[in-house]
Amino acid sequence: MKTRIAIIGYGNIGKAVEQAVLAAEDMQLVGIYHHNDNLDNIDADVAALCTPTREVPAFAEKLLKRGICTVDSFDIHGQIYDLRKQLTPIAKEHQAVSVIAAGWDPGSDSMVRALLTAIAPKGITYTNFGPGRSMGHTVAAKAIPGVKNALSMTIPLGTGIHRRMVYIELEDGADFATVEKLLLADDYFAHDETHVIPVPSVDALNNVAHGVHLVRDGVSGETHNQRFEFNMTINNPALTGQVLVAVARAAVRMKAEQRFGTFTMIEIPPIYMLPGDEETLIRSLV
Amino acid sequence: MKTRIAIIGYGNIGKAVEQAVLAAEDMQLVGIYHHNDNLDNIDADVAALCTPTREVPAFAEKLLKRGICTVDSFDIHGQIYDLRKQLTPIAKEHQAVSVIAAGWDPGSDSMVRALLTAIAPKGITYTNFGPGRSMGHTVAAKAIPGVKNALSMTIPLGTGIHRRMVYIELEDGADFATVEKLLLADDYFAHDETHVIPVPSVDALNNVAHGVHLVRDGVSGETHNQRFEFNMTINNPALTGQVLVAVARAAVRMKAEQRFGTFTMIEIPPIYMLPGDEETLIRSLV
Repeated sequence: MKTRIAIIGYGNIGKAVEQAVLAAEDMQLVGIYHHNDNLDNIDADVAALCTPTREVPAFAEKLLKRGICTVDSFDIHGQIYDLRKQLTPIAKEHQAVSVIAAGWDPGSDSMVRALLTAIAPKGITYTNFGPGRSMGHTVAAKAIPGVKNALSMTIPLGTGIHRRMVYIELEDGADFATVEKLLLADDYFAHDETHVIPVPSVDALNNVAHGVHLVRDGVSGETHNQRFEFNMTINNPALTGQVLVAVARAAVRMKAEQRFGTFTMIEIPPIYMLPGDEETLIRSLV
Repeated sequence: MKTRIAIIGYGNIGKAVEQAVLAAEDMQLVGIYHHNDNLDNIDADVAALCTPTREVPAFAEKLLKRGICTVDSFDIHGQIYDLRKQLTPIAKEHQAVSVIAAGWDPGSDSMVRALLTAIAPKGITYTNFGPGRSMGHTVAAKAIPGVKNALSMTIPLGTGIHRRMVYIELEDGADFATVEKLLLADDYFAHDETHVIPVPSVDALNNVAHGVHLVRDGVSGETHNQRFEFNMTINNPALTGQVLVAVARAAVRMKAEQRFGTFTMIEIPPIYMLPGDEETLIRSLV
C-alpha cells in the first residue's frame, strides 16, 4: 500500500518534493496545495510542508490536529527545539507524527554530526557551507535601499569561517558606494569577510548548487587524532525535496508503530527513511 | 543512574571498550571477563562482546537469555541478517536488546550508506577501505605453509577496488617463490592485485591505523550529479571500542522503552548513542 502524500507550497522545494514523490514507487501524490489554499479537504497520510519557514509551525499544527503527519525543513537552527516542544503535545494528542528540520542542514548533516559525536565523543566539528547561495543573507541584501536584486554567496574558508560574496543589481540612480556601506554595516554581514560586487543582472548568476565540507577531529576512548570528513556538492532544492520524502516515509512508519510525537532527524533510525523490505536493506547496506 | 557494562573478551577491542567506558561519565564498568571465564554471575545492564567474531552468537544467546543486553561488532557481512534473525526471538522472549554488527564497517559506515541511499536513492555507493590491515587476509596469509608471520594491508584504488600488500616473514628454510605462488593462488588473493613482499620482521610493521573513503554519486528526485563523500583515518580498535560503548547506551535505552529485539545500527536513532539530555543534544547537533 502506497503512502499518500500531499505537498503544501509549490515553490522550489515543493516542486522538488513532487519530483521525488513521482520517482518513489512507494509514494502516491494526492495533491499539491498552494500555501494560501483551503486545506480543509486534504486527505493524506502525510503532508510535506514546503511553505516559507516561518509559516511551517501554523501549517503543522493545523494538519496534525487532523491526524495528518507532517514533515518540514524548518531551518531556523535556534528555534528547532522550541518548535519540537510546541508540536509534540499536538502530535501526541492527535496520534500523528511530525518530523521537523528535515533538509540537509538542519537535516542530513545533523545525522552525520550526531554519529560522529557518538563515535569520537571529544573533539570539534566544523561545518563549512558552500560555495552556494545563502537565503538569509540574500534577503538581507535585497532589503538594503537602492538594491534592485541581490545574491549572497557563502564561501567556505575552513574551521566554520565563511566569506560572503554579495552580487548587487542597483536600482536606477542608486549610488553603489552608499549601498555597499549600508550593506557592510548590516548585522548579517558585519561579522564576516564580505565583498560587495555590482553586476548588471543578478538573474544571470542564478545557480542552485550548494556544498558542505564537515570535519571532525576527535577522540575515541583515549585515542586522539580520529579524523572524519563529510563532503557534498548538491542541487539544493532537489536534496531538500528528497530528504522530505525520505522522512515522510519514516513519519508514516512511526505512526504505524504508535510512536506519536515530533522528531528531528537525529531521533529517526536511518532505515525508516528507506523503501523496501528490511532483509534486503540490511543485507545490502549494513 | 549509570549504565552498568561488562566487557567479554580482553583483546584489542576489549581494551578499547574499557578505555571508552572509563572516558564516559554515564557508564560504570562492572567487570572484564576473558572469553573462557564463567559468566554465570555477571550482573550488568549490557555486555560488550569483544570475543573473536565467530564466538559472538553463542555469547549473545547466553547473555540475552539472562535478560542482559548485548552489543557486538560481528563483522561477517554476509551473515549479519542471519545473526539478527537468530537472536531476535531470544532477545524478545527475555525482554532484552541486542545491537549487532556495531563497529565501523559494518557499523558507522552502514549508517552513512543508509543515509546517503535515502537522500539520493538512485546511484552507486563505493566503499573504499584502507590503507589498513585486513584481518581476514592476514589470517589467510598466515595459513600458507612456510609463513611464520604475515600482514596483509588493504590499499584503496577507488570504485571499491583494492590492492593487497602482503608482508611475509618466512619460516627458516622456507622458499619465498613457493610461498608467493601458493599465496597468489589462494582464493582470498586470487581476485585482487596482490603484491607479496618478504620482510625480516612483521612485528616491526605493526600499526592499527585504518581508513575509509566512501563515495556516492546519486540522484535526488530527477536531479543527477548529487555527490557525497565520507572519509576517515582512524585507530581501528579505538573506533570499534567507542562504537560499542555508543550502541550499549542505545541498547539500554531501547530496553527501557520496551523495544526488545535485535538491531543493526541502521535501525537505531543516532541520538540514542549519545549521553546527555535531549534538549542539549538537539540544540547543539541538529
